[in-house]
Amino acid sequence: MIIVMKNQATEKQIEDVIHWIESVGYKAHPSIGVERTVIGAVGDNRDKEILKYAESLPGVEKTMPILKPYKLASRESHEGNTVVSVGSIKIGGPEFVVIAGPCAIESEEQLLESAYVAKKGGAQVLRGGAYKPRTSPYSFQGMEEEGLKILNQVSARTSLPTVTEVVNPADVNIVESYADMLQIGARNVQNFALLKEVGRSQKPVLLKRGMMTTIEELLMSAEYILSAGNSQVILCERGIRTFETATRNTLDLSAVPVLKSLTHLPVIVDPSHAAGHWRYVIPLSRAAVAVGADGLIVEVHPEPEKAVSDGMQSLKPEKFYQLMDELRAINTAMRH
Amino acid sequence: MIIVMKNQATEKQIEDVIHWIESVGYKAHPSIGVERTVIGAVGDNRDKEILKYAESLPGVEKTMPILKPYKLASRESHEGNTVVSVGSIKIGGPEFVVIAGPCAIESEEQLLESAYVAKKGGAQVLRGGAYKPRTSPYSFQGMEEEGLKILNQVSARTSLPTVTEVVNPADVNIVESYADMLQIGARNVQNFALLKEVGRSQKPVLLKRGMMTTIEELLMSAEYILSAGNSQVILCERGIRTFETATRNTLDLSAVPVLKSLTHLPVIVDPSHAAGHWRYVIPLSRAAVAVGADGLIVEVHPEPEKAVSDGMQSLKPEKFYQLMDELRAINTAMRH
Amino acid sequence: MIIVMKNQATEKQIEDVIHWIESVGYKAHPSIGVERTVIGAVGDNRDKEILKYAESLPGVEKTMPILKPYKLASRESHEGNTVVSVGSIKIGGPEFVVIAGPCAIESEEQLLESAYVAKKGGAQVLRGGAYKPRTSPYSFQGMEEEGLKILNQVSARTSLPTVTEVVNPADVNIVESYADMLQIGARNVQNFALLKEVGRSQKPVLLKRGMMTTIEELLMSAEYILSAGNSQVILCERGIRTFETATRNTLDLSAVPVLKSLTHLPVIVDPSHAAGHWRYVIPLSRAAVAVGADGLIVEVHPEPEKAVSDGMQSLKPEKFYQLMDELRAINTAMRH
Amino acid sequence: MIIVMKNQATEKQIEDVIHWIESVGYKAHPSIGVERTVIGAVGDNRDKEILKYAESLPGVEKTMPILKPYKLASRESHEGNTVVSVGSIKIGGPEFVVIAGPCAIESEEQLLESAYVAKKGGAQVLRGGAYKPRTSPYSFQGMEEEGLKILNQVSARTSLPTVTEVVNPADVNIVESYADMLQIGARNVQNFALLKEVGRSQKPVLLKRGMMTTIEELLMSAEYILSAGNSQVILCERGIRTFETATRNTLDLSAVPVLKSLTHLPVIVDPSHAAGHWRYVIPLSRAAVAVGADGLIVEVHPEPEKAVSDGMQSLKPEKFYQLMDELRAINTAMRH
Repeated sequence: MIIVMKNQATEKQIEDVIHWIESVGYKAHPSIGVERTVIGAVGDNRDKEILKYAESLPGVEKTMPILKPYKLASRESHEGNTVVSVGSIKIGGPEFVVIAGPCAIESEEQLLESAYVAKKGGAQVLRGGAYKPRTSPYSFQGMEEEGLKILNQVSARTSLPTVTEVVNPADVNIVESYADMLQIGARNVQNFALLKEVGRSQKPVLLKRGMMTTIEELLMSAEYILSAGNSQVILCERGIRTFETATRNTLDLSAVPVLKSLTHLPVIVDPSHAAGHWRYVIPLSRAAVAVGADGLIVEVHPEPEKAVSDGMQSLKPEKFYQLMDELRAINTAMRH
Repeated sequence: MIIVMKNQATEKQIEDVIHWIESVGYKAHPSIGVERTVIGAVGDNRDKEILKYAESLPGVEKTMPILKPYKLASRESHEGNTVVSVGSIKIGGPEFVVIAGPCAIESEEQLLESAYVAKKGGAQVLRGGAYKPRTSPYSFQGMEEEGLKILNQVSARTSLPTVTEVVNPADVNIVESYADMLQIGARNVQNFALLKEVGRSQKPVLLKRGMMTTIEELLMSAEYILSAGNSQVILCERGIRTFETATRNTLDLSAVPVLKSLTHLPVIVDPSHAAGHWRYVIPLSRAAVAVGADGLIVEVHPEPEKAVSDGMQSLKPEKFYQLMDELRAINTAMRH
Repeated sequence: MIIVMKNQATEKQIEDVIHWIESVGYKAHPSIGVERTVIGAVGDNRDKEILKYAESLPGVEKTMPILKPYKLASRESHEGNTVVSVGSIKIGGPEFVVIAGPCAIESEEQLLESAYVAKKGGAQVLRGGAYKPRTSPYSFQGMEEEGLKILNQVSARTSLPTVTEVVNPADVNIVESYADMLQIGARNVQNFALLKEVGRSQKPVLLKRGMMTTIEELLMSAEYILSAGNSQVILCERGIRTFETATRNTLDLSAVPVLKSLTHLPVIVDPSHAAGHWRYVIPLSRAAVAVGADGLIVEVHPEPEKAVSDGMQSLKPEKFYQLMDELRAINTAMRH
Repeated sequence: MIIVMKNQATEKQIEDVIHWIESVGYKAHPSIGVERTVIGAVGDNRDKEILKYAESLPGVEKTMPILKPYKLASRESHEGNTVVSVGSIKIGGPEFVVIAGPCAIESEEQLLESAYVAKKGGAQVLRGGAYKPRTSPYSFQGMEEEGLKILNQVSARTSLPTVTEVVNPADVNIVESYADMLQIGARNVQNFALLKEVGRSQKPVLLKRGMMTTIEELLMSAEYILSAGNSQVILCERGIRTFETATRNTLDLSAVPVLKSLTHLPVIVDPSHAAGHWRYVIPLSRAAVAVGADGLIVEVHPEPEKAVSDGMQSLKPEKFYQLMDELRAINTAMRH
C-alpha cells in the first residue's frame, strides 16, 4: 500500500502516519519527493484492509494498493492454463467448447429434444435450469429436484455432461448429485455463503460474472471457491449493466483477453443473456470465438415461442446449426 | 402489453401476431395508425412474460409493457403509508428515525460502547453485523452466533431494538431469534432463496438496494418478501455503482421521492456505504433528511482507526453527535 | 405516443388529457382496458416533444413513444446499405476496410513512416490528428494547419485517402480542403453546432459514438448531418463508459449488429481508444470483423514509446502486420 | 508517477524501465519490496502523459499517478473560496443563490413573466436559453440573437443579472455582449475549442458537469478556462447518466462535498435537468441546500404545458414560491 501525503502535510503529520502504520503491524518506507511525500506500508499479509483507514488521518491525500487482492486465481500463482473437466469434456484446453440447451427444464420431452438439437449441432455439454432465479415472484421458479432428475436421465441418454444452476447453499448437495457442473448465476456472484458451499464441492463450478461485477471482483469471487478447496472454476462473461438499453446488457468482450492475462482459469461467454434477443446471439458468438474465449454457453429451445422463460433469446434448432457452422469456420481460421 | 408493428409489416404478419397473442391466452386489440399498427394484448395475469416473445415474430418492431410488474409493493394496492415497527420504534410515520452502530460486531465492549454513543446522540435503533458479506475470503467474516448473542445482550442493556444482516437462508431462524429486524444486504437484493425465507419470518426486513439494482427491481425484490406473507419491509437506498470513483458508490437521493411516489413502504438512506468516507457522511445525511427520507442508517464506531472493517466510513462519537444536532435542525425546519 | 393513465384516474382526468392532446394539435384515441385506460396521441409531426408533458397532467402514469425519433438514418427510410466513398475506397460494401495511422501527426517523417506501415500491412485509408481534443490543457493540442499539410503530402506520396478530426465549426472549411473524410470525435458527438457545419460539407463524415451516447442518440447525431444535406456518414463504435476500469472504456460490440438492423449507414469499430492498451487491440479487432463490422480504425505508430499521445494503445509495425494477417483469415472464413 | 513491476520481473527489466524513465526526462527512484519492485518517476512537469507508456514495457504491471492533473482549479493552489460576481450578485460567498427562469426564451412576454415570477420568489439571477443544444435536429433550436436581445431587455426591466448558454466558439463574443454569465452546457463540457474561447472572455462562466464526466474531468475542463485567463468559474452538478431510468439522470449530490474539498470554485446544483420531472425538483432542491451547495439553477415557466422545451421539468409559479419558502427554512436551520 502506498500512502500519498498532501502537499501541505506537516512533518508532524508525516510522523504520525508512520507511527500509525507501525502500530497496525506494517513497516513504513517514506520517500520525500518534490511535491509530495509518499509512504510505502510494507508487510506480509494480503489483508491490508486496515491500511485503507490511513485516508482518514490528518495530512493524507489518498492511499493506493500495490498488490492485487486475489492470489490463487492469479496467473502469478499458476502460470499455465487450468483445464477443467466436465464429465469427459475439457474446457480451457485447445478445443473450443459449446454448452447448449434451454433456459429452464420444462419437461422430459422438451429437454430431450433440446439435447438432441445441441448434440446434432456439435455442442459438447448440455445446460438446463431446475432452480430459476427470477426477478418476479410470480414467474416460473423451476422444476427443482424433478428437473434435476430429468436432466440426469437426458444426460444418460445423450451422453452429454450437464451444467445446472444452484441458488441456495442448502441445495448444493442435491444438485451435485445429479449434475456434472454447478453454475453460480450472475445475481449470486457475491453470494458468499453459496460460494463457500460450492467451494467444498467435488464438482467443477461455472461462475458467471454479475452484471454489476468488476473483473477484479469476479476474480475475488473465484478466490472464494478456490480458497475453499475447489480448483475447478470456469469464468463466464455474460454482459454488464450500462446506460445502453438497446440490448439487455452490454457484452464486455474485452473482459476475455483481460481475464486471460490476469488468471489461469478458463473463460467462456454467454451471448444469450447479454443480448436478450436471439437475433444478436449469432454475431456475438462469432465475436466470442474471435476474441479468444475457451467456449460458449448458449440457449437453444425446440419451440422458443412456447418457452416458459427467455424464449426471446433462445435459438431455434436451424439457427443453432447455422451458428455452429459459422463458429467452426472462424475457429479453423484462428488455429492456422 | 403493447406490441408495435414495423411500418412495413404486412397484413398477414399483423394477423399472425394477433393469432399468436390469442394462442397464448390474451385478447388482441389492434389499432391502425398513420405510420404504425399497434396491438394491445389484454389479459388478467400479471406474468405476461411470454408476451415479450412477440418481439421475435416477423413484422414486430418492439413490445412495451403497460402494467408495473409489482403489485403488493405499489401505492396502487395500498394508498396510505406502511409504518413498520422495530421493537417499540415506528419507521415510516411522522418521526425521522436514526439507526446507528458499528459495521461489524467485534466484542461486547466495542458494541456496548457504540450503543451508548448511538443512544446518547439520539439514535433509536442499534445496528451491528454478525455475518459479514466480504469481497475477499481473507477478510474478517463476522462473529456469527456469538456476535448475535452480544447484540442481544447490548440491546437488553440499552433498550435499543436491533437490526443485523442475514446472508444465508439457513441462518434466518437463528438471526430472527436474536434481532428485532433482519437486514438483506445490497449484494443479496436478488438472492431470491433468501428473500423467500425472510418473507416467512415474523420480523421486519430492512431491504437494501443493490448497487446495480433499478428502483423497479428493488420493488420486485420487496414483492418477493411481501408475497411470501411478510408485510413489514423497509427499503434502503445505499448508493449505486456508476462510472464515478471519487466516492465508493453514488448515493441516488432522487430514489427517495421516486420510491415515495411508487410505494407505500418506508424508505431510509445509508450514506456511509455510499460515500465510503466519513467526511461525506454528514452532508449526505443532511441531504437525506431534506429529500424526505423516513430515516437513516449510519456507521458509528468508538475507535474507527482500529475497526476490523469499514473504519474509514465510520463516524467518531463527536462527529456523530454533531450529525444528530444538524439533522434535528433541518428536520425541525422541514416540519414547520 | 401512448399515454397510460393511472388505474385510479377519474373520467374527468381522462377527458382532460384528451382535450389537452387535441389542444396541442394531435388526435386522441382512448382505449379502456381492464386495469388501465390507454390513450394514443396520433399526428403527423415527428417532433412530439410537447406530448411528453402529458406526464405532468393529473391522472397520468407515464407516456411511451411509439415512433423512433430519427428518420433519414433509419432503415425504414432507406432499405439498402449506404456505401460511402473515401477517395477511391468504398466503406459499407462487400470489402472490410482498415483505417490506420498514428493518433497525432507529429512530423512529416513520423506520418510518412506510419503511412508506409499502414500501406504495407494492407490498410486502405490513413488516419492522423492535427486538432487534438485533450482532457488536459497542458497536453499537446496538435499541429493544426501545419499537420493538415503534412497529411495532404503524405496522402499524395502513398495514394492513401485520409481522415482527420475537426473540433471547431470554424475549422471545417480548412480541414475539408486537405482531408478526404472529416472525423467527429467521441467528445463532440453532441456538439450540434459542429454537426450542422459538417452536414454542409461535401466530404464524408466519420461520426464516433460518444462514451456516454446511446445508440439512439448516435443515430440522432447522424440525423443532424443527414438532415443538413450530407448523406455520407460512417458510424464508429469506440467504447462506452461503464463501471469497469480494467480497460479504458468498454467496447460495445453488440452495437454493431444493433446498428446494422436500425440503420443503412456503414459501421466501423475503433478498438484502440476503447481498450486503451495495445495488448487488447488485436483480439478486439478480430472480434470486430467476426461481429460483422464494415471496417476498423486502428492506431499504428513506428515508435509508440516516443509518441506524444496514446503511445500505449498504438500498435508497433510488426504487431500491425500480425493483426492484418489475422483479420484476413477471419474475414475469408466469414465470406465462405 | 509510480511504476509497479510484476513480481516475476527480472533485474534486466527493472534496469530497462529505469533507463527508459531517464531517457524521457525524469528521475527514477526504485524501491525493492517483498513482493514487488516499485519505481517512482520524479520530475518537474505536470504533463507526465508519456510516463503512462511504461505500462507497455516488459515486466511492468501498472502505473499509478501521484499528482492530480489539475492545478489552478485545486484547493492546493488557492486555499480560500473563490467568490464569483454575476452582475451585483456574489456566488460562492455566505449567501445561497438561486438562478431561475425558463429553459428556452420563447418571446418577450414569456421571459418577462418568468422573470417576475423568479424575482417575486426571491431568485437573484435570471436564466433563459437562446441557443439550445437539442438531441433532435427537428426540435426548436432557440431564438438566437433575437433571444439574447429579449434577455437583455428583461434583465434591464427586472434588474436581474442573467446567464445564458453558448454552444459555438464563434458566438462567444455576441453572447457575452448581452449576458452577465456564459453557460457551458453538459454536452459541451469537453468541447475544448469552446472552453478555450470562454477562457478568453471577461464574463464569468457557469460550467455544467457532463452526464458522463467524472469529477476529475470536470475540474480539468475548468482548468482549460482558468488556464486561458478567466478565473471566474462556477461548477454545476446536473445529474450523471447511470443505469437507472426512473429519473432522466441521477443527481450526484455527493459531488458537492467532494468538489468543495478538491476545489476553491463555487458549486451549484441543477435539479431540473437531473430529475426530468418537476415533481422531484422540490425535494432535490432542499437536498442541494442541505448538502452544502452554493446555489441552485432551476427551471420555472409561467405555463409549462405550453413550453417549447422541457415543460415537464419546469415549475409552475406557485410551486416555485413553495420551493423558495422551503429552501429559506432549511438554509436558516443550517446557518444556526
